[in-house]
Amino acid sequence: MGGSYLKDAVLQRLPHLLGIEGLSPDQITFILDQSKPFQEFQRYPLKKLATLRGKTVAIAFFEPSTRTRISFSTAAARLGADTMNLQAESSSLKKGESLIDTVRTLEAMRPDGIVMRHASSGAPHFVAERLGIPVLNAGDGTHEHPTQALLDALTIRDKKGKLEGWNVTILGDLLHSRVARSNIYLLTKFGARITLCGPAMWVPRELELLAPNVRCVHKVEDALDGADVVMVLRVQTERLHEPSLAPEEYILSYQLTQERLKLARREALVLHPGPMIRGLEIDPAVADGPQSCVLEQVANGLAIRMALLYHLVGGAPADAPHPAKERSNAAD
Amino acid sequence: MGGSYLKDAVLQRLPHLLGIEGLSPDQITFILDQSKPFQEFQRYPLKKLATLRGKTVAIAFFEPSTRTRISFSTAAARLGADTMNLQAESSSLKKGESLIDTVRTLEAMRPDGIVMRHASSGAPHFVAERLGIPVLNAGDGTHEHPTQALLDALTIRDKKGKLEGWNVTILGDLLHSRVARSNIYLLTKFGARITLCGPAMWVPRELELLAPNVRCVHKVEDALDGADVVMVLRVQTERLHEPSLAPEEYILSYQLTQERLKLARREALVLHPGPMIRGLEIDPAVADGPQSCVLEQVANGLAIRMALLYHLVGGAPADAPHPAKERSNAAD
Amino acid sequence: MGGSYLKDAVLQRLPHLLGIEGLSPDQITFILDQSKPFQEFQRYPLKKLATLRGKTVAIAFFEPSTRTRISFSTAAARLGADTMNLQAESSSLKKGESLIDTVRTLEAMRPDGIVMRHASSGAPHFVAERLGIPVLNAGDGTHEHPTQALLDALTIRDKKGKLEGWNVTILGDLLHSRVARSNIYLLTKFGARITLCGPAMWVPRELELLAPNVRCVHKVEDALDGADVVMVLRVQTERLHEPSLAPEEYILSYQLTQERLKLARREALVLHPGPMIRGLEIDPAVADGPQSCVLEQVANGLAIRMALLYHLVGGAPADAPHPAKERSNAAD
Repeated sequence: MGGSYLKDAVLQRLPHLLGIEGLSPDQITFILDQSKPFQEFQRYPLKKLATLRGKTVAIAFFEPSTRTRISFSTAAARLGADTMNLQAESSSLKKGESLIDTVRTLEAMRPDGIVMRHASSGAPHFVAERLGIPVLNAGDGTHEHPTQALLDALTIRDKKGKLEGWNVTILGDLLHSRVARSNIYLLTKFGARITLCGPAMWVPRELELLAPNVRCVHKVEDALDGADVVMVLRVQTERLHEPSLAPEEYILSYQLTQERLKLARREALVLHPGPMIRGLEIDPAVADGPQSCVLEQVANGLAIRMALLYHLVGGAPADAPHPAKERSNAAD
Repeated sequence: MGGSYLKDAVLQRLPHLLGIEGLSPDQITFILDQSKPFQEFQRYPLKKLATLRGKTVAIAFFEPSTRTRISFSTAAARLGADTMNLQAESSSLKKGESLIDTVRTLEAMRPDGIVMRHASSGAPHFVAERLGIPVLNAGDGTHEHPTQALLDALTIRDKKGKLEGWNVTILGDLLHSRVARSNIYLLTKFGARITLCGPAMWVPRELELLAPNVRCVHKVEDALDGADVVMVLRVQTERLHEPSLAPEEYILSYQLTQERLKLARREALVLHPGPMIRGLEIDPAVADGPQSCVLEQVANGLAIRMALLYHLVGGAPADAPHPAKERSNAAD
Repeated sequence: MGGSYLKDAVLQRLPHLLGIEGLSPDQITFILDQSKPFQEFQRYPLKKLATLRGKTVAIAFFEPSTRTRISFSTAAARLGADTMNLQAESSSLKKGESLIDTVRTLEAMRPDGIVMRHASSGAPHFVAERLGIPVLNAGDGTHEHPTQALLDALTIRDKKGKLEGWNVTILGDLLHSRVARSNIYLLTKFGARITLCGPAMWVPRELELLAPNVRCVHKVEDALDGADVVMVLRVQTERLHEPSLAPEEYILSYQLTQERLKLARREALVLHPGPMIRGLEIDPAVADGPQSCVLEQVANGLAIRMALLYHLVGGAPADAPHPAKERSNAAD
């Protein structure tokens, strides 16, 4: 991947990161490549760059979050940026302000980018059309969670040597999962065959229309057979209730156990976006087992988010000739 | 405004910013003047000074707030200061600690100033008498919100070329509004004629005693006639209820609509302290219209707060000859 | 205390600060000595070091806190570190994640140390065995609050010239107090005679087994007679209720009043870990009196926490010859 490839990617540089669906494979590859030095950077004894010094990143979470919020905040801090933190619990929204007025108010204080999570699908797109700064989607409703899919892709590519052509099984509540949607969009762009599996109410046939090579199955044994990657989704216990589904029944039918995992390929990876509920959707022995990539996912999340903030917020001016060169300047 | 003016202002330097009522017009003009470079600064690509590096600003909010808290935090960060954040929700107050013990505990950790918001009128004055550090009032009960009035004044002065002598109409719940009180004190010091308008229960005649040239009217058409500036206050919906007042009735009688706005002078400004409830106190078309200064107000808030933190917290030592000189040193 | 003492102390350097019980008197003395320059540092006009620049301190509070959280955050900021903030209210724990998964997730983002408070006694020890980074206990259940005991010891040593051999009386709910436990462990290592006093239900005889020279008494007059130090604990009002104990009865029998304080030695110190409930466990005149050390305690807390973060997080590599030398390098 030489200079001309990078140059093309720069020319395609996105103003926002709203979702995976609209990205080209080249753009995704570019983001993953750009994350590599930031992965290495996490192992440095001193983890602080001056790249975004003097920049401000607004972090606006209209839904509770721990890991994604801390990951973006830490990514911003390690790049040297200041952050503006808005959390819905204490926000003006309670007083009846509209979303667009809230984010325009933030924008008037001149942040250089905004990371947002919102319970409404499409909220970041709506905001991006109305603001003059980059918008990074940190999860919108049941729609997309693009940084999660990017960090999952980075994990798969690192662990298996390439991203292309794997059999990927996703277990759980597919209907409501933005993580699953972003992963389906991303992985099928790289030739994956996706198997979705869970209770019928959570795996409607319509999901097969999201992308090519997606199939829905309802028996976990069928779903795991031949899988190279197994993604386990968090089960939201508030969605489990009789008569439709008792927790015990979910465990019996869908928990990823050590025995079931043997049905997948021998080197199959186990991914989980977290937070995990051990003993519900995943057997603790699998969560802590040698195939689990859970902590690599978290570490890779930081690298992906640093790379995205670097490019979108700090980012290269439109006519910058070469991002690799620019970064080496910025980091000293 | 030459060196001797500035020198006088420095000699009048306040130890605290508690309210507008006790400020002289010269002191107000000095603060507005000092905010000008900080207004411009928000447009710089790198928004970080070292002026307050090594200083700590305590930001103690005993009432929920989004915009004012973020504005002060961002102002402190851009000046290079660290912040200590206390929010009432998670504070020791729940455990029975007195306000004065809470702020003395903060003071013992050696912040260089404290920004505070409290539901009790006069709380910052009480605190200021007992602490040895500058206190900045970010809103106390129904009493004052001085930085709001200063940012409104900056907006009016910028937009209309001068601050003196305008006809200013304030619409809404005047009785409970600290924003209105601070604005009445400020603008009447510069010769404004103030018209207060809203439902009778919210606009008692006693308000005319707050300052000279204040009158109360109850018909919005009378209030708007000839206005140069129209301030719309947020309606707290929890205060609207039948039989006294239904929301529909408020909208019908007091909402600032495009048609009503035509009764004001042609170049009249529309101000709102935020958060706005579109469709209640203000017509969305007015909120987004060419006369609306809502986003300038937010941006000016940051400039005013940076200027105040610069002077009160970082501030010139008592014998400093010239603040302009000092700033240019501090900023490099 | 020459170079060889310091060298021994460095060799004994702890990987974590979990509790006082397991510390040697030399280790405690070392921490107190190391806090002295950080005490002085709080009086500097510019309170910012670059010592921990590029380091990240995770501050994970699974119980609400104001003062301890702000103290650790400010200590980290003044050493130049970034912080990752997790507060239980908005954490993944609500979603069913285990404690160990939560802290492992934080660890995967590569903080250089973790400060944690948790409602379960022993939680930090459990975590310390499973993570590869230093753990600082900011209070665990009813077990220990080691930084509180260290700051109390620093206050006593400063005020009375030495730490050894005092008569220390602790008043209140001894049964549930982690502050009391850590203080009992610490002070008895320095030859203190400890008197515990409070309602029978809160001062069971078994507490005498915690350490040598601990006795339980139930009359406050007996407890105060001859005391050199009086520690008053916060009364958690939710634990006061009839028929066992009404607040009025507690006040009558146990409040530290001016008159009762006269029973102690003339120069006796009054300590309170805060937050105080004036008029309940302590008479306001005593809280504000000349013997009260309440604000020194808060200031010393910052010094102790800076020293601990300096040593545990920034800390000397295992083979560093001399911490004093190292610090002077780090600070410039």
